[in-house]
Amino acid sequence: MTYCVAMALKDGIVCISDTRTNAGIDQIASVRKLSVYGTPGERAIIIQTAGNLSTSQAVLTRLEQQFGTEFETILNTPSMFDVAKLIGDTMRNIVADYDNGPSMQNIDMTSSFLVAGQIGKAPTESFNIYPQGNFISATPDTPYFQIGESKYGKPVLDRILAYDTSLGEALRCGLVSFDSTLRSNLSVGLPLDIAVYPADSLEPPLIRRIDEDDAYFQQLRSSWSTGMRTLMESIDPPPSDYWQHHLK
Amino acid sequence: MTYCVAMALKDGIVCISDTRTNAGIDQIASVRKLSVYGTPGERAIIIQTAGNLSTSQAVLTRLEQQFGTEFETILNTPSMFDVAKLIGDTMRNIVADYDNGPSMQNIDMTSSFLVAGQIGKAPTESFNIYPQGNFISATPDTPYFQIGESKYGKPVLDRILAYDTSLGEALRCGLVSFDSTLRSNLSVGLPLDIAVYPADSLEPPLIRRIDEDDAYFQQLRSSWSTGMRTLMESIDPPPSDYWQHHLK
Repeated sequence: MTYCVAMALKDGIVCISDTRTNAGIDQIASVRKLSVYGTPGERAIIIQTAGNLSTSQAVLTRLEQQFGTEFETILNTPSMFDVAKLIGDTMRNIVADYDNGPSMQNIDMTSSFLVAGQIGKAPTESFNIYPQGNFISATPDTPYFQIGESKYGKPVLDRILAYDTSLGEALRCGLVSFDSTLRSNLSVGLPLDIAVYPADSLEPPLIRRIDEDDAYFQQLRSSWSTGMRTLMESIDPPPSDYWQHHLK
Repeated sequence: MTYCVAMALKDGIVCISDTRTNAGIDQIASVRKLSVYGTPGERAIIIQTAGNLSTSQAVLTRLEQQFGTEFETILNTPSMFDVAKLIGDTMRNIVADYDNGPSMQNIDMTSSFLVAGQIGKAPTESFNIYPQGNFISATPDTPYFQIGESKYGKPVLDRILAYDTSLGEALRCGLVSFDSTLRSNLSVGLPLDIAVYPADSLEPPLIRRIDEDDAYFQQLRSSWSTGMRTLMESIDPPPSDYWQHHLK
């Protein structure tokens, strides 16, 4: 499985992905699910993937093969909307190649994508591309998207994240969301990849990989775990007549 | 949807269920998903349900119709294992009645059950009954079961709950788990039903219903929300050279 978050904030974009591809007993592989594209000074694009790995790899490879050709590519589309449309259409074409082929019974060939970025003077934008290839855009009311194993880490985002949260604070909140997911679900695993894009920088961000030895992440996990226990203990348990108070 | 938790602890059993049955726009109905059976001084049994409502209601009705007859019932089985087996087998019979009938395409008739309790001098026990009717027992290593929309509220249980957690502390932790789920998923809704069974009391517990006006739950939700924000702010965000530190 997979867990990816993309936060589209006033100050820019924060993306985090795990790298676990197969949580079976004897075959845990690690693969990058976060990719960055762009042209310095002109556009920056961050793409995250979940779902069928052969499809998501094929989509990215097909998109990259078009660079420098006469075709429309994610490096020359006029808008982020068109970048999302290109990703969705490319996936639909790839999945259609395999549909109804031999041995396709009950195999889900689809992938999900998050794409976020900025082109020229347009504002930053973020899209969630569904397995069907259609997509929606993030808004300030709900300034984040998740794909993959999203439920474990959703409550902390819902409680903390807002459109005007700073990039560093959003990264901190996102890492807590990943910590909760890592603890509760073995199919999401370290290392994590992060990419942070400050709005209007138009500089494709580089990716930082966070593994078990990362000092900041270690300290955040430890502080959060201790803090949660302290917070729980700071709330009085219900008195026994609360749960012995009978309403039949 | 549904969210139910059953905690099987050293000191006894704590069960919490929501009551939302349909989260569609114009038809939100409320129904009890937590039922208590037993004979004072002899046995206490708590049953929680998720999944197809017609099936779970039919199972409980069928079980109740057998009370006082010559049949084996949950009030005369020799062990909690047999109670779980009786529930699972009853469900399988009910679902089999409808399988392959008319208009059954893509309708999931199955339900899930949690059953916990104590019979005579045997220790308390808790079982998770799968939609297939088979079941597993909780152990001190993982002293809780969830059915329904379980993922949102799992991290806080994983961080806090242990086999030797007291009943009041477990109820507090369970209510936080429900608060997280209520905030992140509209298909789980108030009021909640709780039942707490102190080990060896052999007294079927009565059910307390918790609604929006419940003073303890109101205060817990408010304290937890404020405390989470304070805890998040107590951890320094990563310095900007953390996310600008580039590893390509």
